[in-house]
Amino acid sequence: MRKTALIMAGGRGERFWPRSRKSMPKQFLSLTDDGKTMIQQTVERILPLVAMEDIYIATNRDYKALVREQLPDIPEENILCEPVGRNTAPCIGLGAVHVEKKYGDAVMIVLPSDHLVKHTSIFRQTLEDACEVAEQGSCLVTLGITPDTPETGYGYIKFKPDMTLGRALAVERFVEKPDLETAKAYLASEQYLWNSGMFIWKASSILANIQKFLPETWEGLKRIEASIGTAKEQAVLEREFAAFPSVSVDYGVMEKAEDIYILSGSFGWDDVGSWLAVERLKTSNEFGNVVNGNVVAIEAKNSIIQGQEKLIALVGVENMIVVDTPDALLICEKDHAGDIKKVLETLRMCGREEYL
Amino acid sequence: MRKTALIMAGGRGERFWPRSRKSMPKQFLSLTDDGKTMIQQTVERILPLVAMEDIYIATNRDYKALVREQLPDIPEENILCEPVGRNTAPCIGLGAVHVEKKYGDAVMIVLPSDHLVKHTSIFRQTLEDACEVAEQGSCLVTLGITPDTPETGYGYIKFKPDMTLGRALAVERFVEKPDLETAKAYLASEQYLWNSGMFIWKASSILANIQKFLPETWEGLKRIEASIGTAKEQAVLEREFAAFPSVSVDYGVMEKAEDIYILSGSFGWDDVGSWLAVERLKTSNEFGNVVNGNVVAIEAKNSIIQGQEKLIALVGVENMIVVDTPDALLICEKDHAGDIKKVLETLRMCGREEYL
Repeated sequence: MRKTALIMAGGRGERFWPRSRKSMPKQFLSLTDDGKTMIQQTVERILPLVAMEDIYIATNRDYKALVREQLPDIPEENILCEPVGRNTAPCIGLGAVHVEKKYGDAVMIVLPSDHLVKHTSIFRQTLEDACEVAEQGSCLVTLGITPDTPETGYGYIKFKPDMTLGRALAVERFVEKPDLETAKAYLASEQYLWNSGMFIWKASSILANIQKFLPETWEGLKRIEASIGTAKEQAVLEREFAAFPSVSVDYGVMEKAEDIYILSGSFGWDDVGSWLAVERLKTSNEFGNVVNGNVVAIEAKNSIIQGQEKLIALVGVENMIVVDTPDALLICEKDHAGDIKKVLETLRMCGREEYL
Repeated sequence: MRKTALIMAGGRGERFWPRSRKSMPKQFLSLTDDGKTMIQQTVERILPLVAMEDIYIATNRDYKALVREQLPDIPEENILCEPVGRNTAPCIGLGAVHVEKKYGDAVMIVLPSDHLVKHTSIFRQTLEDACEVAEQGSCLVTLGITPDTPETGYGYIKFKPDMTLGRALAVERFVEKPDLETAKAYLASEQYLWNSGMFIWKASSILANIQKFLPETWEGLKRIEASIGTAKEQAVLEREFAAFPSVSVDYGVMEKAEDIYILSGSFGWDDVGSWLAVERLKTSNEFGNVVNGNVVAIEAKNSIIQGQEKLIALVGVENMIVVDTPDALLICEKDHAGDIKKVLETLRMCGREEYL
């Protein structure tokens, strides 16, 4: 069966402010040393498995030009612009109806555009195995990451160790981000994997589940599908999307669906969820500093410094995140990385949109 | 007797890097809210006591244009440019021979150009009292600050409580910067004052002491004096200054001289010795932050933020000094304020003069 991919690229990447901006969010930035942006890496990673013409990018109108610039080989009609952000369930539904319209049915690999994978060949093999499972029936397949820490920032997925389909394990349930005690228990039980947000299914399978759990959204999606290629396409898309509830595929579908399978992978996945990820992705120097740019460090330790041309002098600084850009500078204690969004809230409240 | 003043303005203000630069050192910056630079404030502070034509500025050639720009009413011939920096003894000697050449003899008030005084009228009264003492004989007079903390960054002066001349007390000895234990003992004894680096004497008195303790420097100064107003003035100045030892007036004269008197003052003196002084000079907000510029602070405490136009977002930061300028940014833990000079050493070593 034909394999397609839907890469979700509508996010704002706020946790990477001030480098990530409304006008240039994280997925369009390069955070690794190869100079490629995250979305470019995401496409390259699946290319041998999925043809360029079968890769869809779901984003919004503001980022269409960035997608075309960074991914010039993706056909323009494969860039699906959501008129308004409605979280992942409508986004994935939109991709599914496009695939269904074009091919009747096909396997869809659904991927975030801003994650990193270190071991590409293991990742691809896992995806191929997942596609095989997805093709066999109408099940939903997801990739799970074997946890190595009691992370409270991820959702978890409980599997049934004795129920398999190909290389996949049956999913017992999806659970939301746990507190630390619960996360520790999950880790100890060895029956939970991290929810990576990567899914594999036939377009028909996910649409059947959307029909079951989000019937009104499904009806809207069908109206969109009928309009594709007609003069009314844009108008219908705008009308229907505006009416969709904003709901994640995890909450709207996966937590309720049956017949879900999971493949665990050790392919060096990183969701690059905050500036702290830079320490995992780049090499620290002998003082534990990860340094980019024009930096003089005097007795500075365990800090992440992302500068540009301006000279940054650090003296006696520890456990800091420093990110300099031409118009905005962030200085954040590492334990407060999650509070960067409060800066953006403050800026929004003060009407200082130019910094968002 | 005529009163003159010598304002010493040759310093680099390195502890105020990156705002203070080789090309624009601290004394030419405004660190208070009135917009006046430190050297302008220094001149204003003494103006009613000393006529503009009797104020001399000792600096170096690089800063002559800055002095003329900031103090256009000082006669150009009163701007004394040291060909090379030789610390305060030769600098003061140069001022003294100019005063002697012009007036035969006069009182000289010697002041740093980069200190602050909060209570100007008390300060002026103290200076008037000091001038009276200095005029009476050939003694050297200094202003001492009543210590309120066991400061280790200042020199101390021990006085003889029962030996007075006018409002002044006789000095027993000058002592160098003490360690903390010693400083505590000085404070407890109530017989020590901080050395403010402000002196009052007749030109003839200080020259007599230079003749006694730095005879070769005195000979050179006399040759400079003889050349003033002649075609050879610049050549003599350059030759003699190059040969002078680099020595402070404290070490070279005051620690050895007899017949020194001190007036203690409570005129709100601050030597503005480092960025930490900004906390004493400006008002902190409810979180203990002293903020200048375009700043968003989220759970930031007890920090000094000196920004300009660029947005500075602080998240979870405590006890930090942040100083942003167009080409260089300093992030310094408060306890490490003394290590800023290591940044400058590093920059010098790397030949990055543009940042000094």
